[in-house]
Amino acid sequence: MTTLVFGHKSPDTDSTGSAIVWAWYLDHMGTKAEARLLGTPNTEAAFVAKHWGFELPPLLGDLAAGQKVVIVDTNNPAELPETINAADITAIIDHHKLVGGLETAGPIDITIRPLACTATLMYMLMGAHGGHAPDGIKGLMLSCIISDTLAFRSPTTTDTDRQVAERLARELGVDIPTLADAMFAAKSDVSRFSDAELLRMDSKEYTVEGVDFRVSVLETTAPQVILDRKASLMASMEAVAKEDGADQVLLFVVDIIREEATMLIPNDLTRTVAEKSFGATVTGDTVVLPGVMSRKKQIIPALKV
Amino acid sequence: MTTLVFGHKSPDTDSTGSAIVWAWYLDHMGTKAEARLLGTPNTEAAFVAKHWGFELPPLLGDLAAGQKVVIVDTNNPAELPETINAADITAIIDHHKLVGGLETAGPIDITIRPLACTATLMYMLMGAHGGHAPDGIKGLMLSCIISDTLAFRSPTTTDTDRQVAERLARELGVDIPTLADAMFAAKSDVSRFSDAELLRMDSKEYTVEGVDFRVSVLETTAPQVILDRKASLMASMEAVAKEDGADQVLLFVVDIIREEATMLIPNDLTRTVAEKSFGATVTGDTVVLPGVMSRKKQIIPALKV
Repeated sequence: MTTLVFGHKSPDTDSTGSAIVWAWYLDHMGTKAEARLLGTPNTEAAFVAKHWGFELPPLLGDLAAGQKVVIVDTNNPAELPETINAADITAIIDHHKLVGGLETAGPIDITIRPLACTATLMYMLMGAHGGHAPDGIKGLMLSCIISDTLAFRSPTTTDTDRQVAERLARELGVDIPTLADAMFAAKSDVSRFSDAELLRMDSKEYTVEGVDFRVSVLETTAPQVILDRKASLMASMEAVAKEDGADQVLLFVVDIIREEATMLIPNDLTRTVAEKSFGATVTGDTVVLPGVMSRKKQIIPALKV
Repeated sequence: MTTLVFGHKSPDTDSTGSAIVWAWYLDHMGTKAEARLLGTPNTEAAFVAKHWGFELPPLLGDLAAGQKVVIVDTNNPAELPETINAADITAIIDHHKLVGGLETAGPIDITIRPLACTATLMYMLMGAHGGHAPDGIKGLMLSCIISDTLAFRSPTTTDTDRQVAERLARELGVDIPTLADAMFAAKSDVSRFSDAELLRMDSKEYTVEGVDFRVSVLETTAPQVILDRKASLMASMEAVAKEDGADQVLLFVVDIIREEATMLIPNDLTRTVAEKSFGATVTGDTVVLPGVMSRKKQIIPALKV
């Protein structure tokens, strides 16, 4: 049986790239494996796959009971197919907090490390095999790290992420700032997406004191393009939240260059969240949060209602 | 803050020994750490600690919110203090199936591998440091592996467990069969335990089709000593189950030498379990299950009601 390797339902560069990387590694080690997607990848992930010569993986479709799967870049059942616990999960490779809810039939390989990027952990797990990976696979790993660390600007960046990225860049003869610029330009090109698509593009569900949030982040080098659409984005929040079973969408537009986030404030609840969580003074329908770049390190741990 | 390292509530050799081993390793790497116990260790674990020159770790007592802890040899909240999710869990090192239910505030180090023994995984995680461990720590790791593999007889044994054990034995100049005999004799010396203590000594809770079982295993080289007490053991099952919130205790007396288990059959439910799960023909109040030695590999996956 072919093992299917996939990340979460909002495929970004790491979730898409590391699935392709690990499928290659399993194949390389003698286990037939293919990557899958659980949604439409963002524009950066699509650019990165093409840049390194890969087709985007096909959508997963229905997940059969007993299907061998490897889960990468998440351990959260809410971000995975509803039938995930009926699959034969053979490994989990992740860098997020343990959420609880996944179950396995027997003991399996689970490796979670507090790194910025799943691909960094994969490079470590591969040992000597990582050095022998084809350039495309090395390039994917490098792009995943650039993406998740925002080219080392994010506070999630560890020395290990940086060292692995710099080693891969050296071996590939790639200039990291140049590749990062191209990736971030691709990520910022969001004009063809609807408001609802933007709100769901890089979004995770979290519950704070009984309130279910969709915490959405858009990382961009051109925040004005998104902020020009703020009225219609805010108008779409209620329908998106309702459809997804959440109480409220929170949208943070992260300016990668200025290293700050702009949070949209459509109502009293979001104003309270901004004030209580970030000590912000809200006067209009947006508020700038200086230095805030990481949902994992800075937004989620701060959330209060 | 001192990091507290502990395993589950029914401390056996691996759960006790690997907590001491990892506390040593954290200390060795510059993080102040101490081992703790969550219950009275079995006679083999007590023998092993003394044999290698260690005091038994103190009991955990109340677990304060925010206390830094490392969890070893389990990832099951039912086997841990009720307040475990309020602690600051910094790492989980385990070789059991993922149960779900543990949550962490942020991403942490989680390593689970399908090995027979936690200590084997620790030896791998230590890398070169494992070779430089003091003899007592190496001895604990060796004893953990002998215990969890029943001296390589258990079907959970992997090549890695065996290789690590043989390497440690070589470095220590220890004969594995001789050490195993002494450990198993200690484990078989259960005369001073009450029936309720025996039923809880090596016990895990599992739910099968809505029925909550306490699945208890007693590994011994002298099964007759326990089976001579079968009437009073069976009489104690109802009270133990009730007190622990379970529907039924299942007791398997594993004969390490003959490589078989004897299951006690106090009532219709246990008879049905024996027949449906193991295809056994039950005629009296015990039934022999040839080749059954591992709760994890052979008993739990087979359980039907």
